[in-house]
Amino acid sequence: MPQSNSQPLLEQVRSALGADAILTGADIGARYRQDYFAPQPLPGLPLAVVRPRDTAQVAELLRLCHAQRQPVVTQGGMTGLSGGALPAEGDLILSLERLRGIEEFDEQAGTMTLLAGTPLQQAQEAAAERGWLVAVDLGARGSCQIGGNVATNAGGNRVIRYGMTRAQVLGLEAVLADGTVLSSLNKMLKNNAGYDLKQLFIGSEGTLGVITRVVLKLEPLPDAVQTALCAVDSYGQVVELLRHAQRRLSGRLSAFEVMWADFHDAVTTRIPGQRAVLPPGSPFYVLLDLQGSDVQGDATLFERMLEQALDGGLISDAAIASSIQEAQGFWALRDSPARFTTIWPQLASFDISLPIGSIGEFVERLRERLGQALPGCEALHFGHIGDSNLHVCVAVPGTNAATFPEHQIKDLLYGLLREYRGSISAEHGVGTQKKEYLGYSRSAEEITVMRSVKAALDPLGILNPGRIFD
Amino acid sequence: MPQSNSQPLLEQVRSALGADAILTGADIGARYRQDYFAPQPLPGLPLAVVRPRDTAQVAELLRLCHAQRQPVVTQGGMTGLSGGALPAEGDLILSLERLRGIEEFDEQAGTMTLLAGTPLQQAQEAAAERGWLVAVDLGARGSCQIGGNVATNAGGNRVIRYGMTRAQVLGLEAVLADGTVLSSLNKMLKNNAGYDLKQLFIGSEGTLGVITRVVLKLEPLPDAVQTALCAVDSYGQVVELLRHAQRRLSGRLSAFEVMWADFHDAVTTRIPGQRAVLPPGSPFYVLLDLQGSDVQGDATLFERMLEQALDGGLISDAAIASSIQEAQGFWALRDSPARFTTIWPQLASFDISLPIGSIGEFVERLRERLGQALPGCEALHFGHIGDSNLHVCVAVPGTNAATFPEHQIKDLLYGLLREYRGSISAEHGVGTQKKEYLGYSRSAEEITVMRSVKAALDPLGILNPGRIFD
Repeated sequence: MPQSNSQPLLEQVRSALGADAILTGADIGARYRQDYFAPQPLPGLPLAVVRPRDTAQVAELLRLCHAQRQPVVTQGGMTGLSGGALPAEGDLILSLERLRGIEEFDEQAGTMTLLAGTPLQQAQEAAAERGWLVAVDLGARGSCQIGGNVATNAGGNRVIRYGMTRAQVLGLEAVLADGTVLSSLNKMLKNNAGYDLKQLFIGSEGTLGVITRVVLKLEPLPDAVQTALCAVDSYGQVVELLRHAQRRLSGRLSAFEVMWADFHDAVTTRIPGQRAVLPPGSPFYVLLDLQGSDVQGDATLFERMLEQALDGGLISDAAIASSIQEAQGFWALRDSPARFTTIWPQLASFDISLPIGSIGEFVERLRERLGQALPGCEALHFGHIGDSNLHVCVAVPGTNAATFPEHQIKDLLYGLLREYRGSISAEHGVGTQKKEYLGYSRSAEEITVMRSVKAALDPLGILNPGRIFD
Repeated sequence: MPQSNSQPLLEQVRSALGADAILTGADIGARYRQDYFAPQPLPGLPLAVVRPRDTAQVAELLRLCHAQRQPVVTQGGMTGLSGGALPAEGDLILSLERLRGIEEFDEQAGTMTLLAGTPLQQAQEAAAERGWLVAVDLGARGSCQIGGNVATNAGGNRVIRYGMTRAQVLGLEAVLADGTVLSSLNKMLKNNAGYDLKQLFIGSEGTLGVITRVVLKLEPLPDAVQTALCAVDSYGQVVELLRHAQRRLSGRLSAFEVMWADFHDAVTTRIPGQRAVLPPGSPFYVLLDLQGSDVQGDATLFERMLEQALDGGLISDAAIASSIQEAQGFWALRDSPARFTTIWPQLASFDISLPIGSIGEFVERLRERLGQALPGCEALHFGHIGDSNLHVCVAVPGTNAATFPEHQIKDLLYGLLREYRGSISAEHGVGTQKKEYLGYSRSAEEITVMRSVKAALDPLGILNPGRIFD
């Protein structure tokens, strides 16, 4: 609670960054204090919101905060799903909303340099206009910011082909806790001149520095897409289909999304307007995309791949989208979790990963344990299985906000996950929501090294304190 | 020079690891004291060579060395090209030669777990037998070890499609300077549960820990290869050809190797047995590979892509290999630097990177400056240009080992590179050979952070001291 003796800090910030850079008291809008997991603004008031206009202002702000050991929480688009950007009482909020814009498009290098507060969709659209793809893509594209994508190493829909956000970042600029500007705006695909420092900041959820600029690697924009939905009888066949599709489509399999029957049947029967593509009752439904550059050749190859899968008994049924509109209908099934809260107001949601071969058995055992512990509960399973990433949503009919046993469900699921050596976060990060379970996926030695790295870069612990670990 | 008071250490090591684990004095063979850049054994004697049999022995050895502040240099296959694994006088050599073997092949997860001392080629062959590809590939495959590939973030021939070694590593086990075993044997493609610690060890050249196990991500083995050699008139057209091939071959362009006329013409006229594929005199020659899974479809697509390039004026001539043997002949041109020392006994070799669009101009300016400073010198230019990686070899006729102006050439080349904001090492690493130039590619702030990370993980500085930076 540094509020009482921190007035001098705010005066210093106001004087250095300008009065319009700071919001305090009632001027701190609800949007700085809420996110998807905390839809109501948090009760405790942050010290202030500060909105720097450039890297120099970020550096000056951190220098001042560092001198007074003022905790700082960095905010991007507030679309993270782990609570990491929510302010604790007394935190100074560093909002990157004014650091937006594309600074350079180097088509020879195949790179885009942009300010951290630039919304992902803006970057995607600017690239597409010139025939390039920003390979990071996720549902929150309209609101999330590229700096947040990098800070959380965002995953999303295209990881199976292009990798996580980490794989798209060639360079970045970050401001350290003491205000030092670390500029590593590399545009080369290969650079082994010493430690690759950018890796420290990617995925460390703002705890090691504030990312202010990013150099993204661009990919050629594919101009032909094939989409299919397949019915599959067993998890073993799901994995066989994955490997078959990867081999046959060599380098062009761009999505492999799996829906268990529990998910598929609930979505198609209970979400208004959601139409089934294939008959219900199949144990698994798999959504596949091929993205390429050869409309006719790709279509032939895609159909042949699916025929082979049918002939080989890997799939029991398949539908190929005959238009972009139809493909969007297939994807609407997979994207329906965005509408889950309208059906299930209380929901425990998970973003976990396991070795691909273990996921089917894990789901079966999870169902058993949930059934024993919470008879009548509903668990829906789906995810980017080609990336080893399983999402689970658990609802308990008859409960309300006060009685929903969220902690019991977490203990049960993460406890089972620990037995399978899985990860408590595949793509969303740890934030504050999962930090008590970090030890389920990381050894004591690993957490000790994380703390050493944190202490080396932020010795006073002012950056996003209490996120990931205490 | 800790030799005089270190006898107790060697006694402790002998007692803990067994007498056969240690070599001293004349038993330290030449192969532990030489590499490609130091073909004669170094004069100074290392303290001992220690060859642990498992991770526990590595940990015990480091614990003992740490207690006595004994410098340790880790050795793999001794194929690094930066001098990083050569022992300084008095160093204890930790050789991983006995830590070899593939421990697990998880075909459902698509992973291979292996000991760090396993030769790369052994891993590649074991994977290929089961229809999988280890995507890391480089000329030294028969001798280099996977632990060394990871420690140096090796590049090689397939980076344009699969990325550097970093992109192939899902998990690793490393022993820290004090003997702590850090086991992060992750098999998932996505894992955002806290800092991704393996990134610290990848590419840090053994200065932060000793890698003992690696989990590699496997790719489906392509079974169809198309290879072409093209003649190109200008560097601008080389870049256009790169982007054209990437777009048309969507995800399957697997090599884009460029040879400047100086390289091509020297190789085809002066290396015995080396035959030209296309007529000499073209300013640039580009070697392209498509790797896929559809022999007929890929061949059609590859030919169409080249026809479009011819019609569009991007290339002036092209030859497509009609057999594997012919493709090997094309590749022999590109791989001829392995035989350069037979023609040019004194050679300054460089492994640099620049933004792709700047490479052509850089080469022109380098030629001018070399011509002014060293009239009559020969400079050969080639490299993985699709990865922004340029190799340069400079010979000075009439010089010998004593008079060859290596330092002058380095100063000149790295000085120019600095103006272009390039990297002194694209893929080989810094080691001892390039550390005096690290500041040409990294800012003072970056090097300070590197030192902080080093101090956090190896506070006594016993691991590969004096490599990368002092």
